[in-house]
Amino acid sequence: MVSDKQIKIIKSLKHKKNRIKYNLFVAEGDKTILELILAGYNIHSLYSINSQIEGVKNSVDQLSKSELNKISNLSNPKNSLAVFEIPKSKNINYNKLVIGLDNISDPGNLGTIIRLCDWFGIEDLICSFDTVDCYNPKVIQASMGSISRINITYLDLQNTIESNALKTYGTYMQGDSIYETDEIKKGLVLFGNEANGINPNLSKFIDRKLSIPRFGKLKKTESLNVANALSIVLSENARKSTEK
Amino acid sequence: MVSDKQIKIIKSLKHKKNRIKYNLFVAEGDKTILELILAGYNIHSLYSINSQIEGVKNSVDQLSKSELNKISNLSNPKNSLAVFEIPKSKNINYNKLVIGLDNISDPGNLGTIIRLCDWFGIEDLICSFDTVDCYNPKVIQASMGSISRINITYLDLQNTIESNALKTYGTYMQGDSIYETDEIKKGLVLFGNEANGINPNLSKFIDRKLSIPRFGKLKKTESLNVANALSIVLSENARKSTEK
Repeated sequence: MVSDKQIKIIKSLKHKKNRIKYNLFVAEGDKTILELILAGYNIHSLYSINSQIEGVKNSVDQLSKSELNKISNLSNPKNSLAVFEIPKSKNINYNKLVIGLDNISDPGNLGTIIRLCDWFGIEDLICSFDTVDCYNPKVIQASMGSISRINITYLDLQNTIESNALKTYGTYMQGDSIYETDEIKKGLVLFGNEANGINPNLSKFIDRKLSIPRFGKLKKTESLNVANALSIVLSENARKSTEK
Repeated sequence: MVSDKQIKIIKSLKHKKNRIKYNLFVAEGDKTILELILAGYNIHSLYSINSQIEGVKNSVDQLSKSELNKISNLSNPKNSLAVFEIPKSKNINYNKLVIGLDNISDPGNLGTIIRLCDWFGIEDLICSFDTVDCYNPKVIQASMGSISRINITYLDLQNTIESNALKTYGTYMQGDSIYETDEIKKGLVLFGNEANGINPNLSKFIDRKLSIPRFGKLKKTESLNVANALSIVLSENARKSTEK
């Protein structure tokens, strides 16, 4: 049973201002919910069409399918929905490779990027303030539980680079081939907005421009999607780490 | 000016059966239209809110914004829309690396995969019959013109592998690390459905299973999105081709 007041609050959490107001966010689906609980996220409320969720000890508010549909953000609602407290970001470990995102606007892209960071063992992701909120329901769903394993911090990128004197790499259409540069063991690698790339204001902080070479006869491909570019850069760096 | 009959036909082309019936497909936006024309696609009709499209010699049916919106498939229509004849597939060059897709269902994924093939110089893409149609409007838009440079053929994968005696690689969660295998200069590399991977019926035709290693402490990431996996595999193979 979910009250009208609860429905109103849960639905309101699709807007960032309400997530900030209540310090809460929504995750849907048994698997994602279980992963967030196992990662230590504090649960605020938990709803399911079943009497319990496998692996989850917390008590469940059992709802009918139509009640669950009322609070879901998905066009094809899953069997369960949970409201979690937004955790505080942890300290960033600048002694490792850190990924920085400048104004990534598509929630699906951010979710995929979080999943890729998780796959390649990246622990810290820094997002510019104008990057889409990582507690946006679409990001949560696209990250498929990986958000529980990545420390995501929203910061002013320029200020962060300056105050930590970070060696900073940027990904561009023109730059040093990622196949010919050394492994990046420490520093910040920046990826820019889907349409406009890295903000020109940040250019003066870029120590090295990196690029992914194009192949084939024509070399006319417009650009790579930012999540694809990130997957290639992280894979290549991880590969280098395995070289003897 | 676009007649009601034309509107009806153009709108009907969002369905595959009508694209087959008329042998036509729709592309939107000056850039994509120009690339398809330059690549030699035969134009059936061309509409724009402007009197001409830069770089395009073909005459334009000038429409008002609201008329163009009526025939567009996009939630944010662009300035132009063209109807093209569906070209015949060319012969497949099996002496190079060919990509095979088994039951890729998401049009955005297929569009991104076409763009990645273009970036990495892949010329031939083979799709199983149950893969989403490459002339689906969402695929055309996501491929951003790259579809004009990739030869896409819908075939029965099993039959194709057998009748051409293709050396076949498959991408799996478990397999030989792509970082430790040699460059694939010739053969078919298969990528499977977003949720279910490569159809088990095809397993016996796989000569070598490939996988992308996971990194980090936990290694709990569920999987990689198929377009990200393809971007990593193509990048790694292209990198090997640059090694001396």
